[in-house]
Amino acid sequence: MSGAPIDFYFDFASPYAYLASARIDALAGRWGRVVRWRPILLGAVFKISGGMPNLNKPLQGDYLRHDVPRCARLWGVPLHQPLPAPFPSLAASRAFYWLDQAGGEHSPAALARALFHAHWAEGRDMALPENVLDVAASLGLDRDAVEAGIAETAVKDRLRVETETAISRGVFGAPFFVVDGEPFWGADRMDQIEEWLRRGGW
Amino acid sequence: MSGAPIDFYFDFASPYAYLASARIDALAGRWGRVVRWRPILLGAVFKISGGMPNLNKPLQGDYLRHDVPRCARLWGVPLHQPLPAPFPSLAASRAFYWLDQAGGEHSPAALARALFHAHWAEGRDMALPENVLDVAASLGLDRDAVEAGIAETAVKDRLRVETETAISRGVFGAPFFVVDGEPFWGADRMDQIEEWLRRGGW
Repeated sequence: MSGAPIDFYFDFASPYAYLASARIDALAGRWGRVVRWRPILLGAVFKISGGMPNLNKPLQGDYLRHDVPRCARLWGVPLHQPLPAPFPSLAASRAFYWLDQAGGEHSPAALARALFHAHWAEGRDMALPENVLDVAASLGLDRDAVEAGIAETAVKDRLRVETETAISRGVFGAPFFVVDGEPFWGADRMDQIEEWLRRGGW
Repeated sequence: MSGAPIDFYFDFASPYAYLASARIDALAGRWGRVVRWRPILLGAVFKISGGMPNLNKPLQGDYLRHDVPRCARLWGVPLHQPLPAPFPSLAASRAFYWLDQAGGEHSPAALARALFHAHWAEGRDMALPENVLDVAASLGLDRDAVEAGIAETAVKDRLRVETETAISRGVFGAPFFVVDGEPFWGADRMDQIEEWLRRGGW
């Protein structure tokens, strides 16, 4: 069990990031790697790249509403139907970084998995801070502490800095992985990530 | 050896369509399928979808210049370095449909493979009609006949109709495949296409 962590950049609003989130830890674990979960705000990326949520694009949006469930069935990932909409993930992302900065017994990655699951598998709207707090509380976190935490300036700054750092590393979409300096974009690059780890590159 | 043809929509200008073009016939053949090659003009699609060539996008373009060669190495597809630019594929696409309408001994798919290879593996600019004619002539086609053919109104109309038909079927990018009515977008969906053929869907 060695090797650098795999950086996993995601926006909770991305359905493909959700699909990836359900599979990345097991993949990394098979190769003795841990995953460094890094929520970012794709909206900030889109301001630079001119992008927009793919689900909102004409033609492509219809395809994605077909492709995401098809991938979920293939990979055995639970998915709410009809597919939930992308959402402003500010509260969810800040809750993650508050917990990351607070330290302690609770795992930020476990919170991220639970937030992803609540929105994309259960259809609960994680745009709403009260729903984010409900999920955090269900994991045993202090609801009031989380509520205060996501309002902290240091937490807000952390999310902004992580997003800026991601952009400076070339991240332009989600999920986006960096494995030993090598960038991989998309849930559909995870087979290549596994091959990269197996061979040590090619 | 049975089953409906696999529709393969592509623009010669797409590097991922090139990567797919080098692999789709073998994949289909393993499952007793033939491939119906259908060049289209993504520019017409982008007018509806608001898209643009991914290689020209900020951030994403840099990633693609890294990802395309990496995929080519993994899949054993020859690729010119530095990566050629996307190009206006009007002449190449018209040459394909002229040959398709002319019938005879020459295979339109073989011409398509040769045109893809000339641009993306050899770095010859297929935006230029004279280069397209050179490739056609190298396959034994009558250069003058091709030159006259790509100027025919019926051929120009055919390309427009094929592009419009593709859009009406939901095609918004390339490569795009339709397998027994099921749409798959991207060279990175070819593993899923193979799985779809193996299982008969899921």
